[in-house]
Amino acid sequence: MRVEIWSDIACPWCYVGKARFEKALAAFPHRDDVEVVHRSFELDPGRAKGDVQPVVTMLTRKYGMSEAQAEAGEDNLGAQAAAEGLDYRTRGRDHGNTFDMHRLLHFAKEQGRQDELIQLLYRANFAEERSVFTEGDERLVELAAEAGLDAEAARAVLADPSRHADEVRADEAEAAQLGATGVPFFVLDRKYGVSGAQPAEVFSRALTQAWGEHSPLKPVDQGDPAEGAACGPDGCAVPQQD
Amino acid sequence: MRVEIWSDIACPWCYVGKARFEKALAAFPHRDDVEVVHRSFELDPGRAKGDVQPVVTMLTRKYGMSEAQAEAGEDNLGAQAAAEGLDYRTRGRDHGNTFDMHRLLHFAKEQGRQDELIQLLYRANFAEERSVFTEGDERLVELAAEAGLDAEAARAVLADPSRHADEVRADEAEAAQLGATGVPFFVLDRKYGVSGAQPAEVFSRALTQAWGEHSPLKPVDQGDPAEGAACGPDGCAVPQQD
Repeated sequence: MRVEIWSDIACPWCYVGKARFEKALAAFPHRDDVEVVHRSFELDPGRAKGDVQPVVTMLTRKYGMSEAQAEAGEDNLGAQAAAEGLDYRTRGRDHGNTFDMHRLLHFAKEQGRQDELIQLLYRANFAEERSVFTEGDERLVELAAEAGLDAEAARAVLADPSRHADEVRADEAEAAQLGATGVPFFVLDRKYGVSGAQPAEVFSRALTQAWGEHSPLKPVDQGDPAEGAACGPDGCAVPQQD
Repeated sequence: MRVEIWSDIACPWCYVGKARFEKALAAFPHRDDVEVVHRSFELDPGRAKGDVQPVVTMLTRKYGMSEAQAEAGEDNLGAQAAAEGLDYRTRGRDHGNTFDMHRLLHFAKEQGRQDELIQLLYRANFAEERSVFTEGDERLVELAAEAGLDAEAARAVLADPSRHADEVRADEAEAAQLGATGVPFFVLDRKYGVSGAQPAEVFSRALTQAWGEHSPLKPVDQGDPAEGAACGPDGCAVPQQD
Protein backbone atom coordinates (compact mmCIF):
# COMPACT_ATOMS: atom_id res chain seq x y z
CA MET A 1 0.00 0.00 0.00
CA ARG A 2 1.22 3.48 -0.78
CA VAL A 3 0.78 6.64 1.29
CA GLU A 4 1.61 9.95 -0.36
CA ILE A 5 2.15 12.96 1.87
CA TRP A 6 1.94 16.42 0.37
CA SER A 7 3.74 18.89 2.58
CA ASP A 8 5.99 21.92 2.75
CA ILE A 9 9.13 22.41 4.80
CA ALA A 10 7.78 25.81 5.83
CA CYS A 11 4.59 24.23 7.20
CA PRO A 12 4.66 23.63 10.94
CA TRP A 13 1.57 21.42 10.89
CA CYS A 14 3.33 19.22 8.35
CA TYR A 15 6.23 18.78 10.79
CA VAL A 16 3.80 17.87 13.58
CA GLY A 17 1.50 15.83 11.33
CA LYS A 18 4.35 13.73 9.99
CA ALA A 19 5.27 12.70 13.55
CA ARG A 20 1.65 11.81 14.30
CA PHE A 21 1.34 9.79 11.11
CA GLU A 22 4.59 7.98 11.88
CA LYS A 23 3.36 7.08 15.33
CA ALA A 24 0.30 5.46 13.73
CA LEU A 25 2.43 3.76 11.08
CA ALA A 26 4.84 2.31 13.66
CA ALA A 27 1.90 0.62 15.37
CA PHE A 28 0.29 -0.57 12.13
CA PRO A 29 0.61 -4.35 11.71
CA HIS A 30 1.23 -4.12 7.95
CA ARG A 31 3.72 -1.25 8.24
CA ASP A 32 6.37 -3.13 6.23
CA ASP A 33 4.02 -3.18 3.27
CA VAL A 34 3.38 0.55 3.37
CA GLU A 35 5.44 2.72 1.06
CA VAL A 36 5.58 6.41 2.02
CA VAL A 37 6.22 8.99 -0.69
CA HIS A 38 6.72 12.69 -0.03
CA ARG A 39 5.13 15.10 -2.46
CA SER A 40 5.77 18.78 -2.96
CA PHE A 41 3.46 21.59 -1.98
CA GLU A 42 4.67 25.17 -1.56
CA LEU A 43 2.77 27.33 0.87
CA ASP A 44 4.25 30.49 -0.54
CA PRO A 45 5.17 29.79 -4.18
CA GLY A 46 4.99 33.46 -5.15
CA ARG A 47 7.72 34.50 -2.74
CA ALA A 48 11.05 35.27 -4.42
CA LYS A 49 14.00 33.07 -3.51
CA GLY A 50 15.85 35.78 -1.60
CA ASP A 51 12.77 37.20 0.14
CA VAL A 52 13.19 36.00 3.73
CA GLN A 53 11.26 37.32 6.72
CA PRO A 54 11.04 36.42 10.38
CA VAL A 55 7.97 34.19 10.78
CA VAL A 56 6.20 36.57 13.16
CA THR A 57 6.71 39.50 10.77
CA MET A 58 5.36 37.39 7.90
CA LEU A 59 2.30 36.40 9.93
CA THR A 60 1.50 39.99 10.89
CA ARG A 61 2.05 41.37 7.36
CA LYS A 62 0.54 38.57 5.30
CA TYR A 63 -2.38 37.59 7.50
CA GLY A 64 -2.94 40.79 9.41
CA MET A 65 -2.43 39.16 12.81
CA SER A 66 -1.29 41.19 15.76
CA GLU A 67 2.16 40.32 17.00
CA ALA A 68 0.60 38.80 20.13
CA GLN A 69 -1.66 36.57 18.02
CA ALA A 70 1.26 35.44 15.87
CA GLU A 71 3.31 34.64 18.95
CA ALA A 72 0.41 32.79 20.57
CA GLY A 73 0.10 30.70 17.39
CA GLU A 74 3.79 29.86 17.58
CA ASP A 75 3.50 28.98 21.25
CA ASN A 76 0.61 26.65 20.48
CA LEU A 77 2.63 25.00 17.71
CA GLY A 78 5.58 24.66 20.08
CA ALA A 79 3.36 22.88 22.59
CA GLN A 80 1.87 20.56 19.95
CA ALA A 81 5.34 19.76 18.63
CA ALA A 82 6.65 19.07 22.14
CA ALA A 83 3.76 16.66 22.71
CA GLU A 84 5.12 14.65 19.76
CA GLY A 85 8.65 14.78 21.12
CA LEU A 86 9.75 17.38 18.55
CA ASP A 87 11.91 20.43 19.21
CA TYR A 88 10.37 23.70 18.03
CA ARG A 89 11.80 27.21 18.29
CA THR A 90 8.80 29.42 18.91
CA ARG A 91 10.77 32.64 18.37
CA GLY A 92 13.27 33.75 15.79
CA ARG A 93 12.49 31.39 12.90
CA ASP A 94 12.55 32.59 9.29
CA HIS A 95 10.07 32.14 6.49
CA GLY A 96 11.02 31.95 2.82
CA ASN A 97 10.66 30.21 -0.52
CA THR A 98 11.03 26.40 -0.39
CA PHE A 99 11.15 25.56 -4.09
CA ASP A 100 14.83 24.55 -4.00
CA MET A 101 14.23 22.30 -1.01
CA HIS A 102 11.49 20.53 -2.92
CA ARG A 103 13.76 20.10 -5.94
CA LEU A 104 16.40 18.67 -3.64
CA LEU A 105 13.86 16.29 -2.10
CA HIS A 106 13.07 14.94 -5.54
CA PHE A 107 16.76 14.47 -6.17
CA ALA A 108 17.01 12.64 -2.81
CA LYS A 109 14.15 10.40 -3.86
CA GLU A 110 16.10 9.08 -6.82
CA GLN A 111 18.90 8.18 -4.38
CA GLY A 112 16.58 6.55 -1.86
CA ARG A 113 17.28 9.32 0.68
CA GLN A 114 14.08 11.34 0.62
CA ASP A 115 12.86 10.55 4.09
CA GLU A 116 16.29 11.20 5.62
CA LEU A 117 16.43 14.59 3.91
CA ILE A 118 12.91 15.77 4.74
CA GLN A 119 13.51 14.86 8.35
CA LEU A 120 16.71 16.94 8.42
CA LEU A 121 15.09 19.85 6.60
CA TYR A 122 12.21 19.95 9.07
CA ARG A 123 14.60 19.79 11.98
CA ALA A 124 16.81 22.51 10.53
CA ASN A 125 13.85 24.79 9.87
CA PHE A 126 11.88 24.29 13.05
CA ALA A 127 14.39 23.36 15.71
CA GLU A 128 17.79 24.83 14.86
CA GLU A 129 18.99 28.34 15.35
CA ARG A 130 20.63 28.67 11.94
CA SER A 131 18.22 29.71 9.21
CA VAL A 132 17.67 27.40 6.26
CA PHE A 133 16.82 30.44 4.16
CA THR A 134 19.61 32.98 4.60
CA GLU A 135 22.80 31.00 4.06
CA GLY A 136 22.29 30.25 0.38
CA ASP A 137 22.72 26.85 -1.21
CA GLU A 138 25.55 25.78 1.07
CA ARG A 139 23.29 25.19 4.05
CA LEU A 140 21.12 22.88 1.93
CA VAL A 141 24.19 21.13 0.52
CA GLU A 142 25.32 20.48 4.09
CA LEU A 143 21.97 18.96 5.01
CA ALA A 144 21.94 16.91 1.80
CA ALA A 145 25.35 15.47 2.70
CA GLU A 146 24.10 14.71 6.20
CA ALA A 147 21.21 12.82 4.60
CA GLY A 148 23.72 10.67 2.74
CA LEU A 149 23.69 12.46 -0.61
CA ASP A 150 26.76 13.41 -2.56
CA ALA A 151 27.49 17.08 -1.74
CA GLU A 152 28.81 17.87 -5.21
CA ALA A 153 25.77 16.36 -6.88
CA ALA A 154 23.40 18.20 -4.53
CA ARG A 155 25.20 21.47 -5.28
CA ALA A 156 24.78 20.86 -9.01
CA VAL A 157 21.05 20.25 -8.56
CA LEU A 158 20.63 23.46 -6.56
CA ALA A 159 22.65 25.47 -9.08
CA ASP A 160 20.42 24.49 -11.99
CA PRO A 161 16.84 25.68 -11.36
CA SER A 162 15.47 23.39 -14.07
CA ARG A 163 16.58 20.20 -12.28
CA HIS A 164 13.55 18.45 -10.75
CA ALA A 165 11.46 21.58 -11.23
CA ASP A 166 8.90 19.75 -13.34
CA GLU A 167 8.47 17.13 -10.66
CA VAL A 168 7.72 19.79 -8.06
CA ARG A 169 5.18 21.40 -10.38
CA ALA A 170 3.65 18.03 -11.21
CA ASP A 171 3.19 17.24 -7.52
CA GLU A 172 1.53 20.59 -6.99
CA ALA A 173 -0.78 20.14 -9.95
CA GLU A 174 -1.73 16.73 -8.63
CA ALA A 175 -2.47 18.11 -5.18
CA ALA A 176 -4.86 20.60 -6.76
CA GLN A 177 -6.45 17.84 -8.81
CA LEU A 178 -6.96 15.76 -5.67
CA GLY A 179 -8.63 18.67 -3.96
CA ALA A 180 -5.89 19.61 -1.50
CA THR A 181 -5.97 23.27 -0.55
CA GLY A 182 -3.65 23.00 2.42
CA VAL A 183 -1.05 20.71 3.88
CA PRO A 184 -0.23 18.22 5.27
CA PHE A 185 -2.42 16.18 2.94
CA PHE A 186 -2.25 12.40 3.13
CA VAL A 187 -3.44 10.16 0.32
CA LEU A 188 -3.74 6.42 0.92
CA ASP A 189 -3.66 4.22 -2.16
CA ARG A 190 -5.14 7.10 -4.15
CA LYS A 191 -8.41 6.17 -2.51
CA TYR A 192 -8.59 7.89 0.86
CA GLY A 193 -7.59 11.40 1.77
CA VAL A 194 -6.74 12.76 5.21
CA SER A 195 -6.31 16.48 5.55
CA GLY A 196 -4.31 18.12 8.30
CA ALA A 197 -2.18 17.10 11.26
CA GLN A 198 -4.79 14.73 12.63
CA PRO A 199 -4.23 12.79 15.84
CA ALA A 200 -2.44 9.46 15.42
CA GLU A 201 -5.72 7.58 15.98
CA VAL A 202 -7.19 9.12 12.84
CA PHE A 203 -4.18 7.95 10.84
CA SER A 204 -4.45 4.49 12.40
CA ARG A 205 -8.08 4.33 11.35
CA ALA A 206 -7.23 5.53 7.85
CA LEU A 207 -4.46 2.94 7.45
CA THR A 208 -6.76 0.15 8.62
CA GLN A 209 -9.60 1.27 6.39
CA ALA A 210 -7.45 1.68 3.29
CA TRP A 211 -5.67 -1.61 3.95
CA GLY A 212 -8.97 -3.44 4.16
CA GLU A 213 -9.91 -2.18 0.73
CA HIS A 214 -6.49 -2.52 -0.79
CA SER A 215 -7.25 -4.67 -3.77
CA PRO A 216 -5.23 -6.24 -6.48
CA LEU A 217 -5.79 -4.85 -9.94
CA LYS A 218 -8.96 -5.81 -11.73
CA PRO A 219 -8.44 -7.25 -15.17
CA VAL A 220 -10.15 -5.47 -18.03
CA ASP A 221 -12.25 -7.61 -20.34
CA GLN A 222 -9.62 -8.42 -22.91
CA GLY A 223 -11.67 -10.35 -25.40
CA ASP A 224 -9.54 -12.98 -27.07
CA PRO A 225 -6.66 -13.63 -24.65
CA ALA A 226 -4.51 -14.84 -27.51
CA GLU A 227 -4.29 -11.27 -28.75
CA GLY A 228 -2.40 -9.88 -25.77
CA ALA A 229 1.16 -10.63 -26.75
CA ALA A 230 3.78 -9.89 -24.14
CA CYS A 231 7.45 -10.41 -23.43
CA GLY A 232 8.47 -12.05 -20.19
CA PRO A 233 11.09 -14.30 -18.66
CA ASP A 234 10.25 -16.98 -21.22
CA GLY A 235 10.64 -14.76 -24.22
CA CYS A 236 8.22 -12.85 -26.39
CA ALA A 237 5.19 -15.05 -26.89
CA VAL A 238 3.66 -14.95 -30.30
CA PRO A 239 -0.14 -15.02 -30.07
CA GLN A 240 -1.55 -18.38 -31.09
CA GLN A 241 -4.06 -18.00 -33.88
CA ASP A 242 -6.54 -20.81 -34.23
CA MET B 1 -6.66 9.80 -14.65
CA ARG B 2 -3.25 8.21 -14.71
CA VAL B 3 -2.04 5.36 -16.89
CA GLU B 4 1.25 3.72 -15.99
CA ILE B 5 2.98 1.61 -18.62
CA TRP B 6 5.63 -0.86 -17.53
CA SER B 7 7.85 -1.74 -20.47
CA ASP B 8 11.35 -2.42 -21.69
CA ILE B 9 13.16 -0.92 -24.66
CA ALA B 10 14.24 -4.46 -25.61
CA CYS B 11 10.62 -5.63 -25.72
CA PRO B 12 9.11 -5.65 -29.21
CA TRP B 13 5.56 -6.12 -27.93
CA CYS B 14 6.03 -2.99 -25.82
CA TYR B 15 6.91 -1.05 -28.96
CA VAL B 16 3.84 -2.37 -30.75
CA GLY B 17 1.60 -2.15 -27.66
CA LYS B 18 2.49 1.48 -27.04
CA ALA B 19 1.33 2.37 -30.55
CA ARG B 20 -1.93 0.48 -30.04
CA PHE B 21 -2.52 2.15 -26.69
CA GLU B 22 -1.81 5.55 -28.22
CA LYS B 23 -4.30 4.92 -30.98
CA ALA B 24 -6.95 4.26 -28.33
CA LEU B 25 -5.88 7.26 -26.30
CA ALA B 26 -6.02 9.60 -29.31
CA ALA B 27 -9.66 8.63 -29.81
CA PHE B 28 -10.57 8.83 -26.12
CA PRO B 29 -12.79 11.85 -25.39
CA HIS B 30 -11.06 12.60 -22.06
CA ARG B 31 -7.56 12.15 -23.44
CA ASP B 32 -6.43 15.55 -22.14
CA ASP B 33 -7.11 14.40 -18.60
CA VAL B 34 -5.05 11.25 -18.95
CA GLU B 35 -1.49 11.37 -17.66
CA VAL B 36 0.78 8.66 -19.05
CA VAL B 37 3.80 7.57 -16.99
CA HIS B 38 6.44 5.14 -18.21
CA ARG B 39 7.74 2.64 -15.69
CA SER B 40 10.82 0.47 -15.86
CA PHE B 41 10.89 -3.28 -16.42
CA GLU B 42 13.99 -5.11 -17.60
CA LEU B 43 13.43 -8.29 -19.56
CA ASP B 44 16.99 -9.38 -19.05
CA PRO B 45 18.24 -7.78 -15.82
CA GLY B 46 20.91 -10.43 -15.27
CA ARG B 47 22.71 -9.66 -18.53
CA ALA B 48 25.96 -7.74 -18.06
CA LYS B 49 26.18 -4.29 -19.59
CA GLY B 50 28.66 -5.26 -22.28
CA ASP B 51 27.04 -8.60 -23.13
CA VAL B 52 25.41 -7.92 -26.49
CA GLN B 53 24.10 -10.56 -28.88
CA PRO B 54 22.22 -10.58 -32.15
CA VAL B 55 18.52 -11.05 -31.30
CA VAL B 56 18.23 -14.29 -33.27
CA THR B 57 21.30 -15.76 -31.52
CA MET B 58 19.84 -14.77 -28.13
CA LEU B 59 16.49 -16.37 -29.01
CA THR B 60 18.09 -19.65 -30.07
CA ARG B 61 20.47 -19.83 -27.09
CA LYS B 62 18.20 -18.54 -24.34
CA TYR B 63 14.90 -20.08 -25.39
CA GLY B 64 16.10 -23.04 -27.37
CA MET B 65 14.32 -21.96 -30.55
CA SER B 66 15.54 -23.05 -33.92
CA GLU B 67 16.88 -20.24 -36.07
CA ALA B 68 13.87 -20.61 -38.35
CA GLN B 69 11.48 -20.24 -35.39
CA ALA B 70 13.32 -17.17 -34.16
CA GLU B 71 13.21 -15.61 -37.60
CA ALA B 72 9.54 -16.43 -38.01
CA GLY B 73 8.87 -14.68 -34.69
CA GLU B 74 10.73 -11.63 -35.89
CA ASP B 75 8.81 -11.68 -39.18
CA ASN B 76 5.54 -11.82 -37.27
CA LEU B 77 6.62 -8.89 -35.10
CA GLY B 78 7.64 -6.97 -38.21
CA ALA B 79 4.18 -7.50 -39.68
CA GLN B 80 2.42 -6.49 -36.46
CA ALA B 81 4.60 -3.40 -36.21
CA ALA B 82 3.96 -2.46 -39.83
CA ALA B 83 0.22 -2.74 -39.20
CA GLU B 84 0.65 0.02 -36.61
CA GLY B 85 2.71 2.14 -38.99
CA LEU B 86 5.98 1.33 -37.23
CA ASP B 87 9.28 0.49 -38.86
CA TYR B 88 10.82 -2.76 -37.66
CA ARG B 89 14.08 -4.39 -38.75
CA THR B 90 13.38 -8.09 -38.66
CA ARG B 91 17.04 -9.04 -39.15
CA GLY B 92 20.25 -7.82 -37.61
CA ARG B 93 19.02 -6.24 -34.38
CA ASP B 94 20.98 -6.59 -31.13
CA HIS B 95 19.86 -7.58 -27.68
CA GLY B 96 21.48 -6.32 -24.49
CA ASN B 97 21.08 -4.85 -21.04
CA THR B 98 18.72 -1.87 -20.82
CA PHE B 99 19.34 -0.67 -17.27
CA ASP B 100 21.10 2.52 -18.38
CA MET B 101 18.26 3.36 -20.75
CA HIS B 102 15.81 3.06 -17.88
CA ARG B 103 17.96 5.29 -15.70
CA LEU B 104 18.06 7.81 -18.52
CA LEU B 105 14.28 7.62 -18.90
CA HIS B 106 13.89 8.52 -15.24
CA PHE B 107 16.23 11.43 -15.75
CA ALA B 108 14.15 12.48 -18.76
CA LYS B 109 11.03 12.32 -16.62
CA GLU B 110 12.34 14.99 -14.29
CA GLN B 111 12.86 17.19 -17.33
CA GLY B 112 9.44 16.48 -18.80
CA ARG B 113 11.00 14.61 -21.76
CA GLN B 114 10.25 11.01 -20.94
CA ASP B 115 7.85 10.31 -23.74
CA GLU B 116 10.11 11.95 -26.31
CA LEU B 117 13.02 9.81 -25.16
CA ILE B 118 11.21 6.49 -24.98
CA GLN B 119 9.89 7.06 -28.46
CA LEU B 120 13.42 7.70 -29.77
CA LEU B 121 14.87 4.71 -27.90
CA TYR B 122 12.25 2.38 -29.35
CA ARG B 123 12.84 3.73 -32.82
CA ALA B 124 16.61 3.43 -32.45
CA ASN B 125 16.39 -0.13 -31.18
CA PHE B 126 13.75 -1.51 -33.50
CA ALA B 127 14.00 0.50 -36.69
CA GLU B 128 17.51 1.84 -37.08
CA GLU B 129 20.56 0.05 -38.36
CA ARG B 130 22.92 1.35 -35.69
CA SER B 131 22.85 -0.67 -32.49
CA VAL B 132 21.81 1.03 -29.27
CA PHE B 133 23.94 -1.48 -27.38
CA THR B 134 27.38 -1.48 -28.96
CA GLU B 135 28.35 2.18 -29.22
CA GLY B 136 28.60 2.85 -25.48
CA ASP B 137 27.08 5.82 -23.71
CA GLU B 138 27.56 8.21 -26.62
CA ARG B 139 24.75 6.73 -28.67
CA LEU B 140 22.37 7.22 -25.73
CA VAL B 141 23.67 10.75 -25.14
CA GLU B 142 22.91 11.51 -28.79
CA LEU B 143 19.35 10.22 -28.43
CA ALA B 144 18.91 12.12 -25.15
CA ALA B 145 19.95 15.34 -26.89
CA GLU B 146 17.54 14.59 -29.70
CA ALA B 147 14.80 14.23 -27.08
CA GLY B 148 15.59 17.73 -25.85
CA LEU B 149 17.80 16.85 -22.89
CA ASP B 150 21.10 18.49 -22.13
CA ALA B 151 23.82 16.21 -23.56
CA GLU B 152 26.30 16.99 -20.79
CA ALA B 153 23.75 16.24 -18.09
CA ALA B 154 22.70 13.00 -19.79
CA ARG B 155 26.35 11.95 -20.03
CA ALA B 156 26.79 12.59 -16.31
CA VAL B 157 23.74 10.44 -15.50
CA LEU B 158 25.03 7.58 -17.64
CA ALA B 159 28.52 7.82 -16.13
CA ASP B 160 27.24 7.40 -12.57
CA PRO B 161 25.46 4.04 -12.19
CA SER B 162 23.80 5.12 -8.94
CA ARG B 163 21.86 7.95 -10.59
CA HIS B 164 18.17 6.97 -10.88
CA ALA B 165 19.06 3.34 -10.16
CA ASP B 166 16.73 3.22 -7.15
CA GLU B 167 13.86 4.48 -9.25
CA VAL B 168 14.36 1.72 -11.79
CA ARG B 169 14.46 -0.86 -9.00
CA ALA B 170 11.40 0.64 -7.33
CA ASP B 171 9.44 0.43 -10.60
CA GLU B 172 10.43 -3.19 -10.98
CA ALA B 173 9.49 -4.04 -7.41
CA GLU B 174 6.14 -2.37 -7.95
CA ALA B 175 5.53 -4.34 -11.13
CA ALA B 176 6.09 -7.56 -9.20
CA GLN B 177 3.78 -6.35 -6.45
CA LEU B 178 1.07 -5.61 -9.01
CA GLY B 179 1.42 -9.08 -10.44
CA ALA B 180 3.11 -8.22 -13.73
CA THR B 181 5.25 -11.06 -15.03
CA GLY B 182 5.71 -9.69 -18.51
CA VAL B 183 5.46 -6.46 -20.43
CA PRO B 184 3.92 -4.29 -21.70
CA PHE B 185 1.78 -3.98 -18.60
CA PHE B 186 -0.73 -1.13 -18.39
CA VAL B 187 -2.20 0.06 -15.09
CA LEU B 188 -5.10 2.50 -15.13
CA ASP B 189 -5.60 4.56 -11.98
CA ARG B 190 -4.04 1.72 -10.00
CA LYS B 191 -7.35 -0.02 -10.42
CA TYR B 192 -7.34 -1.83 -13.75
CA GLY B 193 -4.59 -3.83 -15.31
CA VAL B 194 -4.13 -4.67 -18.99
CA SER B 195 -1.43 -7.14 -19.88
CA GLY B 196 0.19 -7.35 -23.28
CA ALA B 197 0.01 -5.57 -26.62
CA GLN B 198 -3.77 -5.77 -26.80
CA PRO B 199 -5.69 -4.42 -29.79
CA ALA B 200 -6.60 -0.73 -29.56
CA GLU B 201 -10.25 -1.65 -28.84
CA VAL B 202 -9.23 -3.35 -25.60
CA PHE B 203 -7.39 -0.20 -24.53
CA SER B 204 -10.41 1.91 -25.49
CA ARG B 205 -12.62 -0.26 -23.34
CA ALA B 206 -10.16 -0.11 -20.46
CA LEU B 207 -9.94 3.68 -20.66
CA THR B 208 -13.72 4.02 -20.71
CA GLN B 209 -14.19 1.59 -17.85
CA ALA B 210 -11.51 3.14 -15.63
CA TRP B 211 -12.75 6.64 -16.42
CA GLY B 212 -16.25 5.73 -15.36
CA GLU B 213 -15.00 4.61 -11.98
CA HIS B 214 -12.46 7.37 -11.58
CA SER B 215 -13.49 8.78 -8.25
CA PRO B 216 -12.37 11.61 -6.09
CA LEU B 217 -10.73 10.64 -2.82
CA LYS B 218 -12.96 9.43 -0.03
CA PRO B 219 -12.53 11.23 3.24
CA VAL B 220 -11.60 9.15 6.23
CA ASP B 221 -13.74 9.57 9.34
CA GLN B 222 -11.68 12.24 11.04
CA GLY B 223 -13.56 12.54 14.32
CA ASP B 224 -13.39 16.09 15.58
CA PRO B 225 -12.64 18.21 12.51
CA ALA B 226 -11.12 20.89 14.71
CA GLU B 227 -8.19 18.60 15.35
CA GLY B 228 -6.96 18.50 11.79
CA ALA B 229 -4.77 21.56 11.70
CA ALA B 230 -3.33 22.49 8.34
CA CYS B 231 -1.44 25.28 6.63
CA GLY B 232 -2.87 26.78 3.48
CA PRO B 233 -3.11 30.00 1.52
CA ASP B 234 -4.69 31.67 4.55
CA GLY B 235 -1.98 30.69 6.96
CA CYS B 236 -1.65 27.93 9.49
CA ALA B 237 -5.00 27.54 11.19
CA VAL B 238 -4.84 26.86 14.88
CA PRO B 239 -7.49 24.30 15.83
CA GLN B 240 -10.35 25.85 17.75
CA GLN B 241 -10.80 24.16 21.07
CA ASP B 242 -14.22 24.51 22.65
